[in-house]
Amino acid sequence: MRKYGIIGVGHVGATTAYTLVTKGIADELILLDDHNEAKAMAEKLDLEDAQARLDTRTRIKVGDYAELADADILFVTAGNIHALDNASGNRWAEFSYTREIVQDIAPKIKASGFKGVLIDVMNPCDCITYYLQQTTGLPQSHVLGTGTFLDTARMQKVVSDQFDVDPKNVTGYVYGEHGESQFSAWSTVRVNGLPIKELAADKDIDLNELEDAARRGGWAVHSGKGYTSYAIATCAVKLSQAVLADANLACPCSAFSEKYQTYVGQPAIIGKDGVVSVTELPLTAAEEAKFKRSAGLIREKFETLPGMAKKAVKTA
Amino acid sequence: MRKYGIIGVGHVGATTAYTLVTKGIADELILLDDHNEAKAMAEKLDLEDAQARLDTRTRIKVGDYAELADADILFVTAGNIHALDNASGNRWAEFSYTREIVQDIAPKIKASGFKGVLIDVMNPCDCITYYLQQTTGLPQSHVLGTGTFLDTARMQKVVSDQFDVDPKNVTGYVYGEHGESQFSAWSTVRVNGLPIKELAADKDIDLNELEDAARRGGWAVHSGKGYTSYAIATCAVKLSQAVLADANLACPCSAFSEKYQTYVGQPAIIGKDGVVSVTELPLTAAEEAKFKRSAGLIREKFETLPGMAKKAVKTA
Amino acid sequence: MRKYGIIGVGHVGATTAYTLVTKGIADELILLDDHNEAKAMAEKLDLEDAQARLDTRTRIKVGDYAELADADILFVTAGNIHALDNASGNRWAEFSYTREIVQDIAPKIKASGFKGVLIDVMNPCDCITYYLQQTTGLPQSHVLGTGTFLDTARMQKVVSDQFDVDPKNVTGYVYGEHGESQFSAWSTVRVNGLPIKELAADKDIDLNELEDAARRGGWAVHSGKGYTSYAIATCAVKLSQAVLADANLACPCSAFSEKYQTYVGQPAIIGKDGVVSVTELPLTAAEEAKFKRSAGLIREKFETLPGMAKKAVKTA
Amino acid sequence: MRKYGIIGVGHVGATTAYTLVTKGIADELILLDDHNEAKAMAEKLDLEDAQARLDTRTRIKVGDYAELADADILFVTAGNIHALDNASGNRWAEFSYTREIVQDIAPKIKASGFKGVLIDVMNPCDCITYYLQQTTGLPQSHVLGTGTFLDTARMQKVVSDQFDVDPKNVTGYVYGEHGESQFSAWSTVRVNGLPIKELAADKDIDLNELEDAARRGGWAVHSGKGYTSYAIATCAVKLSQAVLADANLACPCSAFSEKYQTYVGQPAIIGKDGVVSVTELPLTAAEEAKFKRSAGLIREKFETLPGMAKKAVKTA
Repeated sequence: MRKYGIIGVGHVGATTAYTLVTKGIADELILLDDHNEAKAMAEKLDLEDAQARLDTRTRIKVGDYAELADADILFVTAGNIHALDNASGNRWAEFSYTREIVQDIAPKIKASGFKGVLIDVMNPCDCITYYLQQTTGLPQSHVLGTGTFLDTARMQKVVSDQFDVDPKNVTGYVYGEHGESQFSAWSTVRVNGLPIKELAADKDIDLNELEDAARRGGWAVHSGKGYTSYAIATCAVKLSQAVLADANLACPCSAFSEKYQTYVGQPAIIGKDGVVSVTELPLTAAEEAKFKRSAGLIREKFETLPGMAKKAVKTA
Repeated sequence: MRKYGIIGVGHVGATTAYTLVTKGIADELILLDDHNEAKAMAEKLDLEDAQARLDTRTRIKVGDYAELADADILFVTAGNIHALDNASGNRWAEFSYTREIVQDIAPKIKASGFKGVLIDVMNPCDCITYYLQQTTGLPQSHVLGTGTFLDTARMQKVVSDQFDVDPKNVTGYVYGEHGESQFSAWSTVRVNGLPIKELAADKDIDLNELEDAARRGGWAVHSGKGYTSYAIATCAVKLSQAVLADANLACPCSAFSEKYQTYVGQPAIIGKDGVVSVTELPLTAAEEAKFKRSAGLIREKFETLPGMAKKAVKTA
Repeated sequence: MRKYGIIGVGHVGATTAYTLVTKGIADELILLDDHNEAKAMAEKLDLEDAQARLDTRTRIKVGDYAELADADILFVTAGNIHALDNASGNRWAEFSYTREIVQDIAPKIKASGFKGVLIDVMNPCDCITYYLQQTTGLPQSHVLGTGTFLDTARMQKVVSDQFDVDPKNVTGYVYGEHGESQFSAWSTVRVNGLPIKELAADKDIDLNELEDAARRGGWAVHSGKGYTSYAIATCAVKLSQAVLADANLACPCSAFSEKYQTYVGQPAIIGKDGVVSVTELPLTAAEEAKFKRSAGLIREKFETLPGMAKKAVKTA
Repeated sequence: MRKYGIIGVGHVGATTAYTLVTKGIADELILLDDHNEAKAMAEKLDLEDAQARLDTRTRIKVGDYAELADADILFVTAGNIHALDNASGNRWAEFSYTREIVQDIAPKIKASGFKGVLIDVMNPCDCITYYLQQTTGLPQSHVLGTGTFLDTARMQKVVSDQFDVDPKNVTGYVYGEHGESQFSAWSTVRVNGLPIKELAADKDIDLNELEDAARRGGWAVHSGKGYTSYAIATCAVKLSQAVLADANLACPCSAFSEKYQTYVGQPAIIGKDGVVSVTELPLTAAEEAKFKRSAGLIREKFETLPGMAKKAVKTA
């Protein structure tokens, strides 16, 4: 049986829950939201009201961390989206909230005896993911963040619009922070199998504009609806499916970089133990420099978290 | 190709859109929201950002009513959920808003040349559904409301909790207004094939309490999350699937009653032309009286809509 | 993770495997066929060749019974369909083959340490299911047969054709042997919520003809394609989903009858431990007599299996 | 509504039908098999018997070519698999049968007034696809063959096994005939984003062996089960979904090559009009030579079909 937990039942957590239920992916689902258990309960009811009209059933429980002991997947989605309302594109604006929340959540996860794979969706994603790994005591492979899995999807969408093709025709990766210092590694990107750099040169397309559109994609959604939910939930669920099926699926996500000693968005292989490996693609020197800079920014912020100062960090 | 339109991209409209996209049900989707086109555009973006991670593709467009001319299904979901914040269980509280909105929307639907099946999700559902049928000029069968399809799902959930079974083991119907005057027609309800009245007598279960829990189900969700979305979207999508597949599926919904000369929640058969027929089950005298009263309340409110006074109404 | 095993990779076993893979239901799948491991291997390859085109992944292994130790579900589908080629509607014609096969399979299941739920699809279904329960040492609830779940689906189809409605509008059950002595318990059957006996009386429909059409449904398929596969695989998978989700879903199937001391097709509730309970519906005296007779025939044949003579049987 | 037709209800046609029904993809399905209408009818029954257990409904009809007039998709799957039993890897062995069958089928398709997209699954695929395009009078874009879509999936599987990753991590294409003269264009193939040629050099992997394993994949399946069905049906359905959703999805398939004046397996973009375009990737000189040779073989056989001699061919 597939057992999922979700901590934080805001827009992202609730949409993730709905996705798991409406597609019959989860057999059992634990919703946890210490800061708004009434909402968790309401989401449970709304999901249960749907089940007479679905072909599958998911057992839903609210509020008991002990249920995580035998869960396969745990999504951590707590946050305060309103912190971003005037953030002008800066996901760090949410950090003052989420740094407190995660200090509350992490010990509870540890105490629950959770042994599965933790998928972090909180922002700033890379920094919080790293903190969760350090404080829950879970193996490094078992903790990952959605990171640039979403940004890569946005890049694929922006590029696919440009060429009027299915976004799945676009391969390649966005690297770095799930935030402003991210970048599209155009040397890795292909459209219908053709290098985008060549296509862009032929057609006089400005890749910087496409990169910016991809990076700003989340803010475009945020400004219109006040939050983002569908794409991020879809990404989170897909990562979890790769874990449950032991798929060894290639997904960019926030995974630990030995080279830069931090969690950061990069191509990884996802299987039953979470991050099976990271894939080192031959980036250009300029791309590598951007990657290093972005990783450095994450690491710097990470060290401001209590107990995470340089010397304290030990990678498992 | 399956072409859907959605008017109103609030929580219900957006969740309906997400369901159609994430489950690969719609090939083409038109989002329309004159009062908040920015949100419609943001939902489009969020849904498109998801598509690189989905196995199917849905083409999404925003804002052009003319696209409805060859759509198969049109959901009308406009509303103002905040009208209900202090409504104490009275969906008519939304009527002062929605009666205005629907007068704006109906002529646009008519002008679009839409010829498919219109599924109304606006509240008060039965009254607005009737108005939409009268003003769009669509055949009676082509216009239906989600009505008690949702209330019946809630009844099934409440009953299934009582007996610890799958909600699909519970058959039978909630009749009447999608609102306070609705009732669970217990004479039609069976659990695992056994009449609930007998089970309730054996086990000393108070059916009035269960009925009240079903009726209040929506408010429980509303009070915890500020709106309802997942169950209603699931119901709306299921009705549309019955239409597209010409399933002749038995679904309670808001359909026209010849006897009571109004749209009202009752068992119906849903196929490619919408409501193929309504099913007359042998209700008890007390149930029939409740049904009559509920239908009367709807009809009364309906007649307060401009141009809908008694003599003007002609059923197609 | 959802782990499935299938013993016997003929038409039914292979179609079941394909269903689990193509719908992303199974995370891991073990195919076992001692009598045709080459076919099991070919089915594995064919299913794996499909996976580049599917959104989900299923890990497939062939031939190792030890893998069953931690499987959730085991389908047993071995048989010899050609035994039925001239059987004129008599599933017992397959018994001379399957009684040998099951004596080979049962000890291997036991030795594997399988602790999940066993769903038997072999024919004659009820008899073989009972034998598997007795010889594997699994708890009674953990062993069930597809039994009249398929025959009920056929009855629903035949009735739905008669009334031009969705088969899901037809509720009620076929009882007894998955074979000739089965019967449609018309007192339990409703169409769109209305008792079929009343509808039949109104419309001058011969229920005996419908019953016969349902009973002969499998033979109609068999005579045209040489075997049956899609409906039976769909039924088997649905039972397994009810187990994995702990759905407590009402399904007629071959479950143990305390009253008649044999496995026999009857309404049951299916949850995580298999058969949670059987549902005793108020049959007519004539129906009860048919049920008793059918159960008796099964029991009689069952006792011809080695070690299953009357006194040896002990129900868990 | 999505309306499908299938001509030829053997293993591939029936499995395709089951996939469309069990996944709720088709709203309406027409099964046509002049040579075995009893089997078509049996498959219809088996699929209908399944529908009481499925969440969706598909209306199925048998035998009326006129129904194709408004169908969206037509699969042509007729063949004689036994022609391959001693074929030693030569799909042309089936040609003596299929060249007759297709001369019978093509005029019936034309007479039906079918205007949708025809997806050919008959063997030898490229040759028959070309013939169907010429004789049905459908536009070139509206006729395609599954061609190397399946062979590419097999290459992805073989490569993914070598590297223990998800087959979807493997990108790139098999070109040429759906038959012996096909080849894996290794210059286009990447694993986890890395060029396979480099990975193979590093790890001392023989790409010729992998290519041979991919090419022989179908025969491995055939020798074990007597036919292939699951992967080919999955490929066919996926192509049709790209058409219905107007996805512009990159899929290698049998599409017309202007350069070589024949249908042949190559990367193409699939949208609502079928083949939107073919993608010219920069092959190596050796690959281009293989492609030319393979296309030449197809063209040569094609010209042996009645009326298809050189001068008669006019590309639309």
